[in-house]
Amino acid sequence: MVYLTRRERFNAAHKLWVSEWSDEENLQAFGKCANKNWHGHNYDLFVTVKGTPDPVTGFIIDVKKLSRVIRQAIIDKVDHSNLNLDVDFIPEGMQPTTENLAILFWRQLEPLLEQGQLHRIKLCETENIYAEYFGD
Amino acid sequence: MVYLTRRERFNAAHKLWVSEWSDEENLQAFGKCANKNWHGHNYDLFVTVKGTPDPVTGFIIDVKKLSRVIRQAIIDKVDHSNLNLDVDFIPEGMQPTTENLAILFWRQLEPLLEQGQLHRIKLCETENIYAEYFGD
Amino acid sequence: MVYLTRRERFNAAHKLWVSEWSDEENLQAFGKCANKNWHGHNYDLFVTVKGTPDPVTGFIIDVKKLSRVIRQAIIDKVDHSNLNLDVDFIPEGMQPTTENLAILFWRQLEPLLEQGQLHRIKLCETENIYAEYFGD
Amino acid sequence: MVYLTRRERFNAAHKLWVSEWSDEENLQAFGKCANKNWHGHNYDLFVTVKGTPDPVTGFIIDVKKLSRVIRQAIIDKVDHSNLNLDVDFIPEGMQPTTENLAILFWRQLEPLLEQGQLHRIKLCETENIYAEYFGD
Amino acid sequence: MVYLTRRERFNAAHKLWVSEWSDEENLQAFGKCANKNWHGHNYDLFVTVKGTPDPVTGFIIDVKKLSRVIRQAIIDKVDHSNLNLDVDFIPEGMQPTTENLAILFWRQLEPLLEQGQLHRIKLCETENIYAEYFGD
Amino acid sequence: MVYLTRRERFNAAHKLWVSEWSDEENLQAFGKCANKNWHGHNYDLFVTVKGTPDPVTGFIIDVKKLSRVIRQAIIDKVDHSNLNLDVDFIPEGMQPTTENLAILFWRQLEPLLEQGQLHRIKLCETENIYAEYFGD
Repeated sequence: MVYLTRRERFNAAHKLWVSEWSDEENLQAFGKCANKNWHGHNYDLFVTVKGTPDPVTGFIIDVKKLSRVIRQAIIDKVDHSNLNLDVDFIPEGMQPTTENLAILFWRQLEPLLEQGQLHRIKLCETENIYAEYFGD
Repeated sequence: MVYLTRRERFNAAHKLWVSEWSDEENLQAFGKCANKNWHGHNYDLFVTVKGTPDPVTGFIIDVKKLSRVIRQAIIDKVDHSNLNLDVDFIPEGMQPTTENLAILFWRQLEPLLEQGQLHRIKLCETENIYAEYFGD
Repeated sequence: MVYLTRRERFNAAHKLWVSEWSDEENLQAFGKCANKNWHGHNYDLFVTVKGTPDPVTGFIIDVKKLSRVIRQAIIDKVDHSNLNLDVDFIPEGMQPTTENLAILFWRQLEPLLEQGQLHRIKLCETENIYAEYFGD
Repeated sequence: MVYLTRRERFNAAHKLWVSEWSDEENLQAFGKCANKNWHGHNYDLFVTVKGTPDPVTGFIIDVKKLSRVIRQAIIDKVDHSNLNLDVDFIPEGMQPTTENLAILFWRQLEPLLEQGQLHRIKLCETENIYAEYFGD
Repeated sequence: MVYLTRRERFNAAHKLWVSEWSDEENLQAFGKCANKNWHGHNYDLFVTVKGTPDPVTGFIIDVKKLSRVIRQAIIDKVDHSNLNLDVDFIPEGMQPTTENLAILFWRQLEPLLEQGQLHRIKLCETENIYAEYFGD
Repeated sequence: MVYLTRRERFNAAHKLWVSEWSDEENLQAFGKCANKNWHGHNYDLFVTVKGTPDPVTGFIIDVKKLSRVIRQAIIDKVDHSNLNLDVDFIPEGMQPTTENLAILFWRQLEPLLEQGQLHRIKLCETENIYAEYFGD
């Protein structure tokens, strides 16, 4: 079993905001991330797939195909988007935290992978913060 | 003459949008950066100051003081902000491109520096794009 | 289960030196790291916590609180310190290798974490060397 | 159990090419990587060893010795080489993909490690692609 | 005057080899870089353009257009290539050193830039070596 | 004229401390950097040399020779050292700030360069702070 990882990148706006809460409660819970006018990030997404290299090609999965699937399933929908408003697979009212995004990206990508087996979603929000999800 | 550089970071949302233009014209000029619902970035700001090291302390400027001035003049106003809506020193209608931000940051910081002489503002929008401004 | 990682940084001096050994034995075992006058490093510390995201906030743990706990438990004690002399939780005579520091940092941090479960301490001494500890 | 990782680097040329296939089949499978005149990469190799720190030295393994073993077993043979032509431990006709190289590096290094236990080979081909192997 | 920099990347094989010299002379001058079977690198290319931001768009040059011009002039010709054999604008017999490539890339790109003025070509061969050219 | 840059790295301990001052004055001026027991850093040193590429070799200077000269002039003396105590070319009582070190490294290296002309010393103390010196 070998693990192959592909990085893709996207830029997006978001805010953390619970609509049932008062402004004070949101500020208390989320600090500057609760700015009503949004803020944003450059996200680094690392997708890891596991499998056995094909004896002829040496590939678990053609990394160019993997890149295309990640783009179709995730990047094309989130790049230059507002994560609270624009993305069909992020449920309304769910906070677009790094943790939640990692889970949602897994669920979005996993059914579309035809070769290899999804092992890990790693999402970096800043150089100091990242989340990882390995499936249910 | 020695040059001392301090990096600070901030996260912000923005869009590129000329209000006098139609949607098509904005899309034509700015592509995905014209998304009405905003997108965002992790910005890396490098401030370079030049001067002669103090013969006793060996400092051009105490880098902790430099960090405080950069934060007061720039970071506290732009971090977790919307660059089109929230920042008092960005004129309404001016596009918050990397180029324009580098100029505005210079003008914001230069009058507040008490030691050393401002030499360069370098602003990185992504790992692939940055702008530099050396004054007028 | 989602894994959330926070990076913190510190700078410190240390040396590797077994006081029961002769100078030659220390030089033999530790090379340049046995310089009696110390040397030092910029350390990168990555702390990984695992848990289930809160259904309302989307947080395993508020990453700002995690940062505060790491600072209180570890960074405030080791930053700009001498790891052989200044740190109360490093036993006298224990070598401050990357391996030992990773274990000590785990033991220092684990009892103070109120949310999430400590999963990993990763400590980078240089761009070429790091140690990881996952608990006993 | 603590995990210690050492990075080494090498530069090499390679191509992906199945000699039993036509030019069109190779181009179809490998795209630009099938250029007959070769292309190349800067590779980053991360070797992770696990063990218990020695109670006196604090070392799982002396990282300088680990570096020497990695160089003898792998780097001296692949650095500034052609991975398809020059390396005795890469079987003729086996594609030098990141996946295959990770497995071959494990087999090359594992018997030579006298201290610690090999845990992981991680090989980065570009900033966007890496493979990991944890043994059979 | 503002300076805007765009990074592009490519992978290539090359060797340093003076055909008029003996094997010993080549080995003496170029060491491992003289391997007859080639070696290779991941190159990072930074192109800096200077100009005055357009008062409406805030652009010196649309960075997407800049990226396209760099790709047409340089990247499409050198990516996944052999720099000694495959590239029409590298004269036969000229060593593909980082220094020479920086000059050749300038001459290749400069006539094609329609907006802004080319200021600098920076080419990184490894994390430890880069060359810069600012024109004649 | 082409500019060639080589990176070398070293690790060292230091403190900022004016012996004529009281403890309070030192703490006031230097903060945590005045810890009597020292602290330390991983330093990144970038040396830039300018010249015209040799028409046959394509080299301004053989980068391996440049590396050797940098090591002899600087790295061998400062690596794993105490910058306040161990380095013959750092005058006693001169603060080993990044600014002062950049000047001293220039003076140390410049007379030993036989090919090319020294253009810049860039010294990074942390990922957030660096100094540059271009000569007198």
